[in-house]
Order: sequence, then structure tokens, then C-alpha cells
Amino acid sequence: MFKSRTRIKQLFTRKEPFILESGQSLGEVQLAYETYGKLNKDGRNAILVCHALTADAHAAGLPVLDSRILEEIPLYRSKNPDQPGWWNDLIGPGKALDTDRYFIISSNVLGSCYGSTGPASFKPGSRQTYGPDFPEITVRDMVRAQKRLLDSLGVKELFTAVGGSLGGMQVLEWALLYPQMIRSIIPIATSAGHSAWAIGYSHLTRQAIMTDPSWNNGYYRKQPHRGLSLARQIGMVSYRTDISFEQRFGRHKQAGAATAPFKVESYLSYQGKKLVQRFDANSLITLTRAMDNHDVGRGRKGISNALATINARALCIGISSDILYPASEQKQIARAIPHSLYRELISNDGHDSFLIETDRIGRLISDFLNSIFPNSRQESLVYDNYEIRR
Amino acid sequence: MFKSRTRIKQLFTRKEPFILESGQSLGEVQLAYETYGKLNKDGRNAILVCHALTADAHAAGLPVLDSRILEEIPLYRSKNPDQPGWWNDLIGPGKALDTDRYFIISSNVLGSCYGSTGPASFKPGSRQTYGPDFPEITVRDMVRAQKRLLDSLGVKELFTAVGGSLGGMQVLEWALLYPQMIRSIIPIATSAGHSAWAIGYSHLTRQAIMTDPSWNNGYYRKQPHRGLSLARQIGMVSYRTDISFEQRFGRHKQAGAATAPFKVESYLSYQGKKLVQRFDANSLITLTRAMDNHDVGRGRKGISNALATINARALCIGISSDILYPASEQKQIARAIPHSLYRELISNDGHDSFLIETDRIGRLISDFLNSIFPNSRQESLVYDNYEIRR
Repeated sequence: MFKSRTRIKQLFTRKEPFILESGQSLGEVQLAYETYGKLNKDGRNAILVCHALTADAHAAGLPVLDSRILEEIPLYRSKNPDQPGWWNDLIGPGKALDTDRYFIISSNVLGSCYGSTGPASFKPGSRQTYGPDFPEITVRDMVRAQKRLLDSLGVKELFTAVGGSLGGMQVLEWALLYPQMIRSIIPIATSAGHSAWAIGYSHLTRQAIMTDPSWNNGYYRKQPHRGLSLARQIGMVSYRTDISFEQRFGRHKQAGAATAPFKVESYLSYQGKKLVQRFDANSLITLTRAMDNHDVGRGRKGISNALATINARALCIGISSDILYPASEQKQIARAIPHSLYRELISNDGHDSFLIETDRIGRLISDFLNSIFPNSRQESLVYDNYEIRR
Repeated sequence: MFKSRTRIKQLFTRKEPFILESGQSLGEVQLAYETYGKLNKDGRNAILVCHALTADAHAAGLPVLDSRILEEIPLYRSKNPDQPGWWNDLIGPGKALDTDRYFIISSNVLGSCYGSTGPASFKPGSRQTYGPDFPEITVRDMVRAQKRLLDSLGVKELFTAVGGSLGGMQVLEWALLYPQMIRSIIPIATSAGHSAWAIGYSHLTRQAIMTDPSWNNGYYRKQPHRGLSLARQIGMVSYRTDISFEQRFGRHKQAGAATAPFKVESYLSYQGKKLVQRFDANSLITLTRAMDNHDVGRGRKGISNALATINARALCIGISSDILYPASEQKQIARAIPHSLYRELISNDGHDSFLIETDRIGRLISDFLNSIFPNSRQESLVYDNYEIRR
């Protein structure tokens, strides 16, 4: 398998700061990113891959983990050198996101803790981190920083932008902020305006962190590990389903003894501990707040009106068992986007299916891309054949 | 509206302690309870109402809150004197649980903190509470203590036992532990063996409590209020649905300001704070553990075999939008009980519908009771007309 190094690009400086949607400014903004494949001379064969809440730029291949990268991105110390990127099944030669044809960019989001500017970054000209003083950011801010990154890489046009969950929110904002630059979008299991339900879960995760004894209003010295772990466990439940838990754990206990914890308890605790090793609590708060404030209709006369202005072709993918961003919500998004197609992944695995059922997600994506960029492949479909039931 | 006083009955003493399913024993066991209506001379017109996780014995009427009761049950201080009991719509003259015909008993469960023996009770002969040293109890222990209470009240037979959630678990155990004493059961939105999914939520709520800075391994001096509040909020999300949250809160903010919290956040925080005023953290842990260990099949050759031995007639009620104890689970219970009927409440309100949609729950209950105890009422139905689709 190929190896891929996460790179870091300085995009804004104190001389020319990044003005956030809130009006506040950030100096010295950098984003971490990876690229796969080659950019054509005309800069028009690019695809942007947008990640979800706690993921990073390393979407494919095995990670390069030398001393330089570990100094640049300390949290990469938690990475397993044998573990390929989070969408490795989809990115590579001949895969759905075909690196023989496309130039794929995967960018870590503003506010994250994997090499991009966020709460765990040092304040400009200081050895003090922002911590809880990091300004409130929005999904639009994330996308505007990504745009600067793509400009600096020479990308003129995006063939598509694709992502699930928070990734899908970026995808929708891409279509609205830079309509001239984007031909198609693939939002998966996401939201056009964070629902009360999803905000409720975000609220629970933030409160979990803030309940930790070492939280200290965000000025913690070491991660508020119990709270951060619980935040992740709350998330995990919302990302899965009753059926998948029943199939996987049932009422089995971790050990034989009657007093042993149930397997599902050990699993959740383990997932929580793993996140503590690899994520920053203030970053999780910053990103969940950005998700809660996500609303493509803000300043655009509401969600329906905003989506109706999208001229990019859209493949909207819903997951049948998603309890966090239900399939019904994806259908609504598809209905509101003029040139759109809705496809549903029938799965028992819930929201996380876009990271689990990569074979089937890959087929949906490649069918769609082939349909809007017909090539010699037999399975390519003509876009106009697609119909969405309204 | 009538007033109803919660009474307390001493059921076991140090001389004759209560032997738990675990083999451990509890001296000085008492249960808090209320009764409505009159017991017939033959003691056979009784109905037992079983409550859910954080409820109490005060199921109907306005509470009596004099100094004596507040000394006996200090957490009743949080009660609003104008707020009727939690199933007031169902219990009373002419209501589904008709006090003109039936003698209704509502018993607070063992392990709770509303006048029954639990972690907040004093250890026998001491002014020290059990706290985290309270032994592990099971739903069977709760039911066996209730049986003693009913014996002491002169109840010879239960016409039915009814309850939702943890209440439904007690109802199922009643049918299995005391088949001679019970003619029918009405388990609602419940479980015959707590699922991995429901255990997962229990695990989250316990961890929320244990993350609180003042938790102190259960030896807290004042309630671990942040953790207990978060536990309740996690519960609240599991008791409701995305649709109900959307209808009620949408993306509205609490105040006009952009920085104000979302309404759903304020709602959840408020629900959390309310529970802190009225519940004990160790009690919540004891009761959720009992629910996780609930398994009617334990020692009875599995769940299906156990349910197949029930000879009481059963009305199993599922709630279409329940994400915690899904309707599919209620159908499974109904399928496994020989003389059973399944009815589904179509509602957007999720698990809590059994406390919200009391009119419709009441109609289902009265139709069922009239069918197995035909009287002069026109709407009474003959039980054998009922069919369950298998």
C-alpha cells in the first residue's frame, strides 16, 4: 500500500489575517492536508474529500510518522503505522475516487487538532495555546479556509466535493459559497441546518467534557479525560443502532463472572479511552458548536431557498438506520436541490455506515461520477436518467 | 381533585431480613405506596401500578405534603402541591383504572429514594446512609418486596399489573414469580431482557454521575449535581425523538441573541436541574444496574421459554417511535406470551409516550380490562376476538 504524508500549509498571517464569519480574526492560519493523484494542467480534475468530526487529513494510504510530522502534529503519535486512512477503501488507483484520473485533496478542518489551526494551536507569536479562547468558527469559515488551500495548490475547479456528517455540511457550503468552482457535490448523512435532535446530542457531549473535574473552564493542563471519554461514548451511541449493538454484543458479559461489565459497556469505555489519546477537548467543543450553528439558510433567506440556488449536480446519500441525521432529512435536502439524485444505503449500522459500508458507498459514488463525466466504462450512466421521487 | 398520601410500610426487619436474589440480605426493608379505591372482601379486585426509573408511589391525586411526610420522604419537598400524580389521567372514578371498581396499589420500588429502602436510606440501627454500599438488587427483588406489601394489605389476587419501562419489567416478573396470584398483565414499552442498546444508555448515565467532581466513589456529601443533571439529560434524549424535538424546538434560540443557547439546550439543562432537586445519584445507579441485569430468562431456560410459561393474559403495548425499547421488542414479547395481544401506540413522542399520551393508553387499557372482565359496558370486547399477528 502507498504511503501518504500529511502536509501543512500556512494560509493566513498576522499581516493578512483570516476574518471569520463572526467578524473576529485569526492570524497565522494553517491547514493540514493530503493529496492523492496528480492535478491536470488545467487544474480541473480535482476532488475534495471532507472529513467528519474527529477525523483528520489522512484519508488514504499508510501514514508517514517520522519525527518531523510528530512534531508538527503531536496527536499523530496515537496513529497506528499499519492502519490506512479513514476512507482508504474509496481512494486509490481504480477506486471510486480514482487517483489515476483525479487529484484528490483531503483537508483537515479549521478548529481541529490535527495540524490545522484550532484551540490546541499556539496563539500567534506565543507559546500559549488558544484553549477556550479560540474564537467561535462556522462551517463557512472551514470552507473559506479550504478554498484558500485549493487556490494555493492550483486547483481551478472541483469535479466534486464529497463527505459524510460534518463533511457533508462542508460540501453543501462549498456549493453555496463557490458555485463557479464546483461541478458536483456528494453530501452523505448530513444536515442543511443542524436539527434540534443533533444539537441535543452535541449539548450532551459538551456537557460531558465540562463535567470533568479537570475541565477548569477549558484551561486544563491535561485532557479532561473522563469527560472527553464520556463525550465520545455518547457520540458512539448516536452513530450506531440498537440492531447493530444487539448483533455485536447482546447481553454478553466481558468475562464469565456475573459481576463483570456487559460487553457493550467495555466497548463504549474502550472507544472513549481511544479518543482521549487522540483528540483535544476544546477542539471537540469548537467543532460541535460549529455544527450546531450550521445553517445553509443563514443570510440566504432560509434553507429551502438556499438549497434551491445550488447549480452543482448533487448525489445525496441517506442511511436507512441513521438516528442522528435520518434518511428523511437527506431526502429533504435532495428535494430542495434542483439537479439532485437521492440514494439510500440500507444498513443496520446507523450513521457510521458511511465509514463502514465503504464498498457500497464507493459504488454509489463511482456510478454518479461516471454519469456526470461519462467515460469508456460500461457502467457509466447518463445523469439525466436519474430521477428523484418528489 | 382528591388528595392522596404516600404511606410507608415496614416489611422486613433485622430479625427477619429480606434475602436478595444475590444472596445478600437487607434488614429493615420498607416500601412507600399509595392506594386508590377499596379492596373487596375477597381481596380479588386489586390492580398493581408499577412505576418507571425516577417516578414514585404518588401516581394519582394531589400529594399530601405535611411535615410528617416531608420528614419521612425528604425528596417530596421538590413536589408541587398542585401537580397531580404521574398517571392521574388513568387512575380515578370512571377512568381506565377505575377506582369505583378496583383497588389500585402504586408501590415505590426497592432501591428508589422516595420512602422505600435504597442507597439513601439509613443502614439498620445507624444514622449513616448505605450510599454506594447498598447491595445490588434485581427487578425480581423489587417484585418480591411488593408481594410482601400486597400480602400485608390483604390482596389475594391481582386483576392486572400494569406499567411502562422499568414498570413493565416488574409486570413481567410478577407474571413469572406469582402466576397463581395474577390474572393479567399490561407491560408497556419495556424489555424482557435489557438490550445491549439500553444497557449502553444506562452505562452513559452512570458514567455521567461518576464523572462529577464531587462523586467521591459514591460517598458524596451533596448530590453530584452536574453529573446527575447530565445523566438525566442523556436519559431525556433517549426518551424522546428527533421529530418531537424538531416540532418543539427547531433551531430556535432561547433569547434573540446569536450567542444565546439553542432552546433544546436550555430545555435539556432545565430537565437535568429538575432531577437534581428530586433524585439521589446512588439510587439512579442502583436502579439502572437492576434494569441492565433484568432478564426474565435467567434461571428459566432463556427469555422465550420463560415468557412461554406465562399463563396470565397479556396486553403488550409498543410505541411506534420508541428508540429505547423499540416496538419490535414489544412485538417479540407479545409473540412469546401465549395469551397475548399486541397494540401499538402511533406517536412521535418516543418512549415517554406512555406518560404523555395517557388518553390513548387509557383506552387501550380499559378495552383490554373490559374484555377479560366483561361488564355491562357497551365497549367491552371479548378477549378471544383479539388476535396477534405472528
